[in-house]
Amino acid sequence: MKNSLAEIPELANYRSGRGLIRIPMEQDVPFTPRVRAIVDTAEFQRLRQVTQLGLASKIYPGATHTRFEHALGVFLNAVRYLIQLTHDPRFSAVIDRHHAEVLMVSALLHDLGHWPYCHPIEDLNLPNMPQHEEFAGSFLQPDSELTRVLKSHWDIKPEEVLDVLVARTDSPQLRLIRSILSGPIDIDKMDYLDRDSLHAGVPYGRNFDRNRLIQSLMVNETGDGLAVSEKGKTATELMVFARYVMFSEVYWHHAVRASTCMFGRAFQELYQQWDLNWLFHQSESDMVQELRRAAEGKPVAKLLEGIFGNRRSIYKRVGEYSLVQSAELYQQLSGKRHDYLEQVVRKLAEVLTSRAGVEFDPFDLLIDAPPADREVEFKVQIYYAKEDVYRYLHDVSPVIESLAQRQFDDYVKRVRIFVNPHKRSHVPDQPELTQILLDIV
Amino acid sequence: MKNSLAEIPELANYRSGRGLIRIPMEQDVPFTPRVRAIVDTAEFQRLRQVTQLGLASKIYPGATHTRFEHALGVFLNAVRYLIQLTHDPRFSAVIDRHHAEVLMVSALLHDLGHWPYCHPIEDLNLPNMPQHEEFAGSFLQPDSELTRVLKSHWDIKPEEVLDVLVARTDSPQLRLIRSILSGPIDIDKMDYLDRDSLHAGVPYGRNFDRNRLIQSLMVNETGDGLAVSEKGKTATELMVFARYVMFSEVYWHHAVRASTCMFGRAFQELYQQWDLNWLFHQSESDMVQELRRAAEGKPVAKLLEGIFGNRRSIYKRVGEYSLVQSAELYQQLSGKRHDYLEQVVRKLAEVLTSRAGVEFDPFDLLIDAPPADREVEFKVQIYYAKEDVYRYLHDVSPVIESLAQRQFDDYVKRVRIFVNPHKRSHVPDQPELTQILLDIV
Amino acid sequence: MKNSLAEIPELANYRSGRGLIRIPMEQDVPFTPRVRAIVDTAEFQRLRQVTQLGLASKIYPGATHTRFEHALGVFLNAVRYLIQLTHDPRFSAVIDRHHAEVLMVSALLHDLGHWPYCHPIEDLNLPNMPQHEEFAGSFLQPDSELTRVLKSHWDIKPEEVLDVLVARTDSPQLRLIRSILSGPIDIDKMDYLDRDSLHAGVPYGRNFDRNRLIQSLMVNETGDGLAVSEKGKTATELMVFARYVMFSEVYWHHAVRASTCMFGRAFQELYQQWDLNWLFHQSESDMVQELRRAAEGKPVAKLLEGIFGNRRSIYKRVGEYSLVQSAELYQQLSGKRHDYLEQVVRKLAEVLTSRAGVEFDPFDLLIDAPPADREVEFKVQIYYAKEDVYRYLHDVSPVIESLAQRQFDDYVKRVRIFVNPHKRSHVPDQPELTQILLDIV
Amino acid sequence: MKNSLAEIPELANYRSGRGLIRIPMEQDVPFTPRVRAIVDTAEFQRLRQVTQLGLASKIYPGATHTRFEHALGVFLNAVRYLIQLTHDPRFSAVIDRHHAEVLMVSALLHDLGHWPYCHPIEDLNLPNMPQHEEFAGSFLQPDSELTRVLKSHWDIKPEEVLDVLVARTDSPQLRLIRSILSGPIDIDKMDYLDRDSLHAGVPYGRNFDRNRLIQSLMVNETGDGLAVSEKGKTATELMVFARYVMFSEVYWHHAVRASTCMFGRAFQELYQQWDLNWLFHQSESDMVQELRRAAEGKPVAKLLEGIFGNRRSIYKRVGEYSLVQSAELYQQLSGKRHDYLEQVVRKLAEVLTSRAGVEFDPFDLLIDAPPADREVEFKVQIYYAKEDVYRYLHDVSPVIESLAQRQFDDYVKRVRIFVNPHKRSHVPDQPELTQILLDIV
Repeated sequence: MKNSLAEIPELANYRSGRGLIRIPMEQDVPFTPRVRAIVDTAEFQRLRQVTQLGLASKIYPGATHTRFEHALGVFLNAVRYLIQLTHDPRFSAVIDRHHAEVLMVSALLHDLGHWPYCHPIEDLNLPNMPQHEEFAGSFLQPDSELTRVLKSHWDIKPEEVLDVLVARTDSPQLRLIRSILSGPIDIDKMDYLDRDSLHAGVPYGRNFDRNRLIQSLMVNETGDGLAVSEKGKTATELMVFARYVMFSEVYWHHAVRASTCMFGRAFQELYQQWDLNWLFHQSESDMVQELRRAAEGKPVAKLLEGIFGNRRSIYKRVGEYSLVQSAELYQQLSGKRHDYLEQVVRKLAEVLTSRAGVEFDPFDLLIDAPPADREVEFKVQIYYAKEDVYRYLHDVSPVIESLAQRQFDDYVKRVRIFVNPHKRSHVPDQPELTQILLDIV
Repeated sequence: MKNSLAEIPELANYRSGRGLIRIPMEQDVPFTPRVRAIVDTAEFQRLRQVTQLGLASKIYPGATHTRFEHALGVFLNAVRYLIQLTHDPRFSAVIDRHHAEVLMVSALLHDLGHWPYCHPIEDLNLPNMPQHEEFAGSFLQPDSELTRVLKSHWDIKPEEVLDVLVARTDSPQLRLIRSILSGPIDIDKMDYLDRDSLHAGVPYGRNFDRNRLIQSLMVNETGDGLAVSEKGKTATELMVFARYVMFSEVYWHHAVRASTCMFGRAFQELYQQWDLNWLFHQSESDMVQELRRAAEGKPVAKLLEGIFGNRRSIYKRVGEYSLVQSAELYQQLSGKRHDYLEQVVRKLAEVLTSRAGVEFDPFDLLIDAPPADREVEFKVQIYYAKEDVYRYLHDVSPVIESLAQRQFDDYVKRVRIFVNPHKRSHVPDQPELTQILLDIV
Repeated sequence: MKNSLAEIPELANYRSGRGLIRIPMEQDVPFTPRVRAIVDTAEFQRLRQVTQLGLASKIYPGATHTRFEHALGVFLNAVRYLIQLTHDPRFSAVIDRHHAEVLMVSALLHDLGHWPYCHPIEDLNLPNMPQHEEFAGSFLQPDSELTRVLKSHWDIKPEEVLDVLVARTDSPQLRLIRSILSGPIDIDKMDYLDRDSLHAGVPYGRNFDRNRLIQSLMVNETGDGLAVSEKGKTATELMVFARYVMFSEVYWHHAVRASTCMFGRAFQELYQQWDLNWLFHQSESDMVQELRRAAEGKPVAKLLEGIFGNRRSIYKRVGEYSLVQSAELYQQLSGKRHDYLEQVVRKLAEVLTSRAGVEFDPFDLLIDAPPADREVEFKVQIYYAKEDVYRYLHDVSPVIESLAQRQFDDYVKRVRIFVNPHKRSHVPDQPELTQILLDIV
Repeated sequence: MKNSLAEIPELANYRSGRGLIRIPMEQDVPFTPRVRAIVDTAEFQRLRQVTQLGLASKIYPGATHTRFEHALGVFLNAVRYLIQLTHDPRFSAVIDRHHAEVLMVSALLHDLGHWPYCHPIEDLNLPNMPQHEEFAGSFLQPDSELTRVLKSHWDIKPEEVLDVLVARTDSPQLRLIRSILSGPIDIDKMDYLDRDSLHAGVPYGRNFDRNRLIQSLMVNETGDGLAVSEKGKTATELMVFARYVMFSEVYWHHAVRASTCMFGRAFQELYQQWDLNWLFHQSESDMVQELRRAAEGKPVAKLLEGIFGNRRSIYKRVGEYSLVQSAELYQQLSGKRHDYLEQVVRKLAEVLTSRAGVEFDPFDLLIDAPPADREVEFKVQIYYAKEDVYRYLHDVSPVIESLAQRQFDDYVKRVRIFVNPHKRSHVPDQPELTQILLDIV
């Protein structure tokens, strides 16, 4: 069984250093004929047109890397995890060669269900959004080139991949495979923390001792998920911490959030005129073109033009509230629904208009209220060999517990007030603005 | 005079660590209001749509970085060079604050005269190509936003920038400024060697001791160009060597050349139907769309679809000739004009068709014949303080002389024969193919 | 005032890139004649003979770097901090050129009061230990070369340096200077976290965004200590976290602790035969030679020979207790005095001897019981410009609070039981050993 | 056969990430019980006392790393080369498991024949120097611990290792193994270029694309040496170039050479009073102590005290002659014997004494005349698969040819004149000094 995993051609290529292509961080990705066959399909090439970080490149000019590059990186991690896990007999006993190949293919295709600007659009919680599963499935129809390649080159059915990406059936094997693709130490984060850091030009996600973490991988107590041995505990903490830092400094950077809010508000205003399923199959630049054309001549246009137009004009932060900075406002606004926030914005626009003698329309002001859920995943077991005991990371690591329970939601995901830069000088200082807001909410 | 340079706001920001934006390689770029004003113009934002390496991203998936990012890096280097050179009294005596600001602006705008796929198109030597100066000038018309920002924020006339980028007048100051922008140790190469390496995922251009090189910068013997003190000699050699390696492994990589040849051959076939000046003002993706539409239904379409279509299909290398591999063929084909090469291709197609019993049309085969000029710039002086003597680098460094005189043209820029991958199996092995070619030429 | 700081020769050298020497992490250290004069004294050259990490090189073979190298790195940081802080007018108003020079010299000499194996010896809390002040002072006697250089080249009195290193007098200036040398974001940690990581071959202390942290430096609310602006908050968290990781994986690594315990136990047994003040003036290797000679023929010899002898024989960990692993034993043993621990060891040796039928003598077993104090320094203010408010880091960062309050003492500094490797097979498994220990304590 | 290599425990550990120790550059070295057994012998631990770069640490303060650390790095490379070469059937056909183990052990022990300050002493060409073979053999006597470990843990005879390190018998296998240990792309250089760079704090030896080079390793045409496939050609050039740069900037740095000359001159003066075989078995610090004691009170003492004494006083460079700087002097002095050079020094001392009115004794002046042999190894074959042809690197790479033929000897290894720093001000400028020298020689 173990040998049969070792003979998978992509694992062999990785070990022998043959048939590789290079991606940043000087990584060598196994590129066998059957991997090339997937990569050369229209469905996969589509990922060349989808950027990894969307609007963040407006603030970090180097962050223009694509989901195409990222997918190759995640696939490489799948290969590395598999090479490592073949040394754990409990893994090899459960995962056979076919399962391993499904995992590799799922790694390559894990972003198939993403459409352009997927995350900011999903955060809007619109009624008639396509399901991810359905959307990913549209690229895996019986007649698609990708489906044909999966069958002819890999002997894999589209349903097998979809079942990994969006859980439909259940089994210990599937849970184990899914935990490799999605969890606190998954191959996706293992790639994007480093890759996003590199292209953004920041050091944050680049030093969490990846090698040590991979060397310590094993199967968890119940045999249906990833765990790490004791020697990987600190590396795991570093990876969770790196994710916090990336949120704090990049993903949730105030100007990145400003652009994201601008986009979200505009999309919300305009989306009803399209069949979303059709719209989401467009390329990133085609979708933007559609949106800008639809906004033309309307007040909402300034939001899209500020982001995508010839003259950049990102809204400015005039107020910012974490739990420690203003508990009352933070609790009043975070996690609130869009209609409530728009009501607050309208009232705020009225107050400012009458105070400043300058007209504020409802698109001149935006409130960024983070969704309520806590995003730091941390449920992972550490195995203590001397005592033959598995313990949860958060039970043996107070910092991880703090990060998960408090730091992330209460300090990183702040409530922010953004304003049209042309009207910034007519907004009072934060303390005064805070008072006005407290009167409104 | 020296102080006046030191007080330039961008130099002050760099030193104090304030008002910076980050780009890859963890670089902090001074971002004063007047720099932001240039960056936010439509003319500069256009560089977001132009990739730095064009078709190389088809082979190195991470190499999708833009000229926008690169321009910021070159500008940062201008600031670093200026900070260093203010310590050389012969520099401060010649370059006043206004000159220094013209240099900085020229660094930001040095790629203004580039259009999409500029390099492969220029190599075609087409008759009615726009001049670079004229093209750059089109973004610096009196009514352009960029022109207005240069005047209002920098007190710089467009002609001053154009005169730096495309020499029209002459003076020691201008020669000195131009040598900072273009020469063997210029701020452009200093950026792109490292940046291209990083995004491509290769180590080659990333370790040439940039700091030491900058620390050793000084003015040359005649006061009109850059030189380095003796302590920077090895760093200079390393930089020239790094450029050779980047050509060998990335810029002139066989598959990158295959794509470039495919593009060039298609462009040559189609270009006469457009006003080139109009075409070159389009974005990269718009130009590609124009070309693909024009090729639709014609034999040439397979070249463009192979590069840009949904299914990647890059031509394969079947023959490769450096001076040492086949002196005769190399000398017969390198540096030859396009009409001659097309004639060879037609004859080769005929021979192969009759041999293989499979039809080769003239677009199934391509010859990549490097232009004749030697590209390694190496004319730079080294100053030996103990002897108070300036010597040319190539006089004190045999490896640089070899690199410049022989290695580059004779070994890196090989003549290559590419073939449509669908017909690859009908082409004989290299030794046989070589014989066929020798009979033809 | 500001200019007068800027004109300090070492700051000028750093900026102009002249007169530098190189140390690892590709750092350029300003090396003016007066710095060289200090470095070339016998008192400073002594630091070439003192390793930075002592016994850690027995486990991390690359960690043989010296306090000489480290001192140069701390001095470089002093220069960088000063360059940055000259941009804060509240700093320049308080610290004049002479103060700044005292800081630089103190940075170079900050380890003057260290003797070989200083930390493990101090942890023994022996009665007649020399005071650090007194010990450092012995190198700054009126007739010492170092004293003469400080006077002739720097116009600095030895007392001024001693007063910085070991507080005797008090003033806001001195507190500010001392906070640069010793505190959560001091120039000492800023150097050793990175340097120790590099030489040990681990990534842990190498990614805390040093540049961003330095760029955000400023004076605290009361004008007598370092603080950082809001943009440096995450970098500060990263640095504190990096320190935790270095403790967890290097400084408090079980085998490093085993060697340290062995050394400490032997020193405790032998120290009374020397005048400690004399002994501590010896070089590291001379001190080791003294100790080994004194131990010759006695049972304690095996401890020293296991570390320093021709055959390495480091004691093995047989039990390990953090708060979560065994609260009772942890609380019973951590922070206890040596005589109590030796009593436990004696009883344990008896039990094991009778159980195993093999003689355990009191030097075959060691208990490593961490001292009670909490070591993570975290008292640093963050300045929020929008609100014009200073807040303490631990008030706005739950992870830092956790780290300082719980993680460090309760999870990193575990109680450990070590045994002579030749008798390891006669010690029961941890669960059984735990039971035996619980019966004893 | 292939499998039997793959099952070597050290190769298995490397692949599975278990049983590793860490050394700088974040490398994980397989540390099986039988490797530990070798490392823990007195003969191997001796390497902890021998620094890798000897006197270079006087100029590069971080370069204090030991041959112990380096030996582990070379051993790691042996493992990596073996893992790679098992994919070349021509390798596996010749090298069986026992040969592979002999290679690994030889890698660990390749510096066994080195004594302290080996290189500067060897350059003196003294009459009664011990042979390397004999010297290495003294640690492999029948009764040595190392010999016992080799037998009991590895089933290897001491003669087998000695035969690899110092060729006595001949066979294709042995030539192949030796070419892995010593040649232009050997595992020794592969380690020290990077390791020396890291600890010295310079970037030079750190970018030669190690992974690509290892991936391209194969057996040469005649089956008795290393070669690389075409894809490794540039990486090989980079490695040869890196070695040139390290010589130019570190190993042959003028101040490193000054110390080396001082040491060599003193050793030459004093060596006859010891049995060299005995002396060379001392540790580095013991040998220095011997030398200093023997020099006490004699004029030669200032050379040793300047290097090792409490006050550093390295001789200063007052003249420097490469072929291009002064062909006549260069040719007259380079490669000359010591008695001739001492004669020149005596005459020069006389001239300077009479000119300056200050006494120059024969130890106040030193001439560094590089030995005549060319040190850049470059004989390595490149395999061109398309043509199925092996070509020598220097035949396809003009830069390598230049480097080997001219650059190294004529430009890096300069003739230098050093003077006691206390008398430096009495030596004329280089042009005048040159004239004086030309009159003498």
